[in-house]
Amino acid sequence: MAHIQVHRDDIDLDEPTLVEGLPGLGLVGKIAADHLVDVYDMEYYAACHCDGLPEIAVYAEGDPTVRPPVRIYADADEDLLVLQSDAPVSPSGATEFAGCLVSWFDANDVTPLFLSGMAAEQDGEPPAVYGISTGDGASMLTDADIEHPSQAGAITGPTGALIHEAQRTGLTGVGLVVEADRQFPDPAAARAVLQTAIGPLGDFQVDTEALVEQADQIAEAKQRLAEQLEASEDDSTSARPLGMYQ
Amino acid sequence: MAHIQVHRDDIDLDEPTLVEGLPGLGLVGKIAADHLVDVYDMEYYAACHCDGLPEIAVYAEGDPTVRPPVRIYADADEDLLVLQSDAPVSPSGATEFAGCLVSWFDANDVTPLFLSGMAAEQDGEPPAVYGISTGDGASMLTDADIEHPSQAGAITGPTGALIHEAQRTGLTGVGLVVEADRQFPDPAAARAVLQTAIGPLGDFQVDTEALVEQADQIAEAKQRLAEQLEASEDDSTSARPLGMYQ
Amino acid sequence: MAHIQVHRDDIDLDEPTLVEGLPGLGLVGKIAADHLVDVYDMEYYAACHCDGLPEIAVYAEGDPTVRPPVRIYADADEDLLVLQSDAPVSPSGATEFAGCLVSWFDANDVTPLFLSGMAAEQDGEPPAVYGISTGDGASMLTDADIEHPSQAGAITGPTGALIHEAQRTGLTGVGLVVEADRQFPDPAAARAVLQTAIGPLGDFQVDTEALVEQADQIAEAKQRLAEQLEASEDDSTSARPLGMYQ
Amino acid sequence: MAHIQVHRDDIDLDEPTLVEGLPGLGLVGKIAADHLVDVYDMEYYAACHCDGLPEIAVYAEGDPTVRPPVRIYADADEDLLVLQSDAPVSPSGATEFAGCLVSWFDANDVTPLFLSGMAAEQDGEPPAVYGISTGDGASMLTDADIEHPSQAGAITGPTGALIHEAQRTGLTGVGLVVEADRQFPDPAAARAVLQTAIGPLGDFQVDTEALVEQADQIAEAKQRLAEQLEASEDDSTSARPLGMYQ
Amino acid sequence: MAHIQVHRDDIDLDEPTLVEGLPGLGLVGKIAADHLVDVYDMEYYAACHCDGLPEIAVYAEGDPTVRPPVRIYADADEDLLVLQSDAPVSPSGATEFAGCLVSWFDANDVTPLFLSGMAAEQDGEPPAVYGISTGDGASMLTDADIEHPSQAGAITGPTGALIHEAQRTGLTGVGLVVEADRQFPDPAAARAVLQTAIGPLGDFQVDTEALVEQADQIAEAKQRLAEQLEASEDDSTSARPLGMYQ
Repeated sequence: MAHIQVHRDDIDLDEPTLVEGLPGLGLVGKIAADHLVDVYDMEYYAACHCDGLPEIAVYAEGDPTVRPPVRIYADADEDLLVLQSDAPVSPSGATEFAGCLVSWFDANDVTPLFLSGMAAEQDGEPPAVYGISTGDGASMLTDADIEHPSQAGAITGPTGALIHEAQRTGLTGVGLVVEADRQFPDPAAARAVLQTAIGPLGDFQVDTEALVEQADQIAEAKQRLAEQLEASEDDSTSARPLGMYQ
Repeated sequence: MAHIQVHRDDIDLDEPTLVEGLPGLGLVGKIAADHLVDVYDMEYYAACHCDGLPEIAVYAEGDPTVRPPVRIYADADEDLLVLQSDAPVSPSGATEFAGCLVSWFDANDVTPLFLSGMAAEQDGEPPAVYGISTGDGASMLTDADIEHPSQAGAITGPTGALIHEAQRTGLTGVGLVVEADRQFPDPAAARAVLQTAIGPLGDFQVDTEALVEQADQIAEAKQRLAEQLEASEDDSTSARPLGMYQ
Repeated sequence: MAHIQVHRDDIDLDEPTLVEGLPGLGLVGKIAADHLVDVYDMEYYAACHCDGLPEIAVYAEGDPTVRPPVRIYADADEDLLVLQSDAPVSPSGATEFAGCLVSWFDANDVTPLFLSGMAAEQDGEPPAVYGISTGDGASMLTDADIEHPSQAGAITGPTGALIHEAQRTGLTGVGLVVEADRQFPDPAAARAVLQTAIGPLGDFQVDTEALVEQADQIAEAKQRLAEQLEASEDDSTSARPLGMYQ
Repeated sequence: MAHIQVHRDDIDLDEPTLVEGLPGLGLVGKIAADHLVDVYDMEYYAACHCDGLPEIAVYAEGDPTVRPPVRIYADADEDLLVLQSDAPVSPSGATEFAGCLVSWFDANDVTPLFLSGMAAEQDGEPPAVYGISTGDGASMLTDADIEHPSQAGAITGPTGALIHEAQRTGLTGVGLVVEADRQFPDPAAARAVLQTAIGPLGDFQVDTEALVEQADQIAEAKQRLAEQLEASEDDSTSARPLGMYQ
Repeated sequence: MAHIQVHRDDIDLDEPTLVEGLPGLGLVGKIAADHLVDVYDMEYYAACHCDGLPEIAVYAEGDPTVRPPVRIYADADEDLLVLQSDAPVSPSGATEFAGCLVSWFDANDVTPLFLSGMAAEQDGEPPAVYGISTGDGASMLTDADIEHPSQAGAITGPTGALIHEAQRTGLTGVGLVVEADRQFPDPAAARAVLQTAIGPLGDFQVDTEALVEQADQIAEAKQRLAEQLEASEDDSTSARPLGMYQ
């Protein structure tokens, strides 16, 4: 039953770019992905029903429609897809998820942009961003003027599994690594990767002013996040609010 | 062997509504479901023999008949089904259970009402209730005048898996989220969801006075529950009493 | 390979009654079953080679013959079978074991009497016994004048799985619940269930005087049991003595 | 791929006896088996490649040839086989191992002698030895004048699984239980079982003087064993010396 | 999908020797292997996509190309292959990995040299090196004048599984055991095994001066390693730098 279930065949896409937004270090990917969905008012395009994903029921404020926790949003004008997730992918399910998602990318001519934070000291400098590539992605990095890695590294977790699978199968894609806060959501890092890499790669310019303004909200969210992580250890049935930067 | 085993084919139902009563936060679902079985003197209609359910032998006071721990009760007059459970569904078995139950709903034209508590401070206000939907359930919420979610959220656990599966397969259903006590059985929350949502959705009016009167029994039950939870860690064979609000 | 291996086809049985003696609360079942094997000098009739049972080699004092840990004994005169176990059935293996054993009961017209202790305060009163039933077992309880449950309850563990499976498949059987000591072997409870329920159900009268007399031995056995439980955490090969009421 | 791989088809055996030497309580089996290999200068006859056995590379002093950790040695003159193991068999792999080995015994007319220590106080008396049997092994015990068990008991662990499997399939074999030190290697117990049971059963007389003389080495080995057990918790690659009585 | 994926069919090899460089005690294998890749400027030849290997995305400084964590490098002039790994192979995956890799060795006429450190006291003496063999490897040891084991031993972990599999299938190969530091990377041990064993076996002389000079870098790396090991317990997505001797 594992598959990507598209329910908006009416949205016309031509070799789209996909921005991957799984929760990870600094929540960089999730913040950037959620921001794109918000700014472009993107349409809920497809549900991810891959084995290994959490089976929970998610809903939005003011809208009774139940949605799965991992979804793809689309914008036909920008030929853009965004992978949005409301829950972490478990390490044990990462292999299944990577195979399920990357094979869909391949079958639908999707070029993925994978995102990962990298722990760094906060030194007042803007966070560094560099790019890595799978398939023929190296030329994309050159065309978008994105720097090569300044040191060797490894990307682990679900995003690491996705990039590994793209490499294994030869799918053209790009991974973007950005310095970020190790412990808390880092909208500044998300802004940096949107401005210096995702925009140039996807050939669009996205307004990121909101990310700056939301600094205060982030401070509040830090507190909320801590509480949610604590609560998530309970396996019995309950509904709980989804914060902006869960 | 996983299936729903109906042994009362003589009971005639026509596109029935089912109230799900799995144990969860505040035991809201279990209290509401057990109350319906009691008030309408519902018939034991079907046994749930889905993989992942606990294999224990359950019996009632004064009746020697052994029953499975998860059962469906029926009332032909109200075209009503209730899912009653005497034991928690383990998280690892939730996927199997959800597939088993939702496919039976689908094959038998059952419209499920899923119930979940949501932790809230006790502030003297009546507990808020709001509805979410799968398939074509949104219009049911509108017809019954049930509010939309006041904030985004996620339902986890076995009930979350059931709603997720209903959403995935497109089955029309409704989820009802009610503010409830995080730690103890909350008959007031169960009463609220029965009066403001289940009644209107099922097109019947149920007397909930008993729930108010049982407040004292609940206080006693709190103590009993704590003892039972402690005892449930023992895996060797033993019989133990089933309290009213286990 | 899972099956019941009968090696005494020469023993003639006609719709026999089987007394189940798995270790459980108060060791009620094991004490009662072992007592029957002893009093009627029953023959070793069949070996249980069901998946999930411990693979250990068991032997008796003065007899070099190795036997499996879970065995069935027979007495043709009383048309009686007893299930004797020298080791606990692990919770994870209970499902396999229940399916294996109950299908054999069904195929050989065996009517099982399942036994379970229920924790109770020692109040000087004789331990209460009540009966529950699967299939058409309710009339057996009535004929033998056995009380109905005085409160709702659930039987867990391997015996719970056996009764659950009998219920699921519709096999006629009886479960006997007796108040017993939660922590130590309780021959008084075993005696009560033999006198007030097993005897009447199986249509025989068994001398239980030995159980009274063995009270002193039990006191000693308490100490031995504590030592054995401690030793059983070691998985390497070793032989260890099997006490009377292990 | 699970099988016993014989690479010395040139060694001629006729219904041989096999002495099992898996590590267990007091290392009785391992000490006795290693002693036989040493005294009779036995040939490395077959490799055990059963599922569940540890996949490590073993080598001997002064000989570069890599060998598997569980091996069978042969001596044509005495029609004797010895099962030697340099590593413990994990409890989870014991079932697979028992099936693999016992079916080979059966196919090659091998009569196994299984060995197990039984914890006993050191009281100055020579350690007691008694025998148990599977298949038609009881007459072997009688012929060799080996005592019957002085109390009921159970043999657990890998050796228990082997005897259980021999019993289940009806293979003729013998189990020898000897009182031994619970915590340290016990060459005196190994000597007792060699002299009073293995020799008479296998129809040979083995010089066990070396076991007495090695008492001092054992004392040193106690210290080495403690260190090795500690080291064995590390799963990364490393070579480590194999002591005499590992 | 488990296989070795060669993407440089243009490199011509004739019965090549392979130096295995999995992380193990003292990182001896990894240091020696990485040194060979560096000195001979070896080409990235094949990716290891065996089941059980970690699915992470690895990249080098200044090069955006994503690579898998376990790779084979080649040098046609020396007929040399090197197995390089940037991440440990988990014990549970070692069996799958060993079968995958050794069958490829067999199919491609590869003669493997396996490397393992052995804990030893630092006594000022040059670290001892001795060799073990599988298949017809013993004559290779003689020709290269490599000593036999000075004591019995066992090689565990992934390298132990590889040697075990080579032994099981009869593949000709050599294992080299060298005394090394138990806790920290030991380039002196790597140098010793390169000079006294790998060079003579592979019929080449490799400059190892750099290993001496890097002593200072190692001291720094010790600190970095400790930090990385700590960080590796986190399963969420993140990029992290790969140190020289990770």
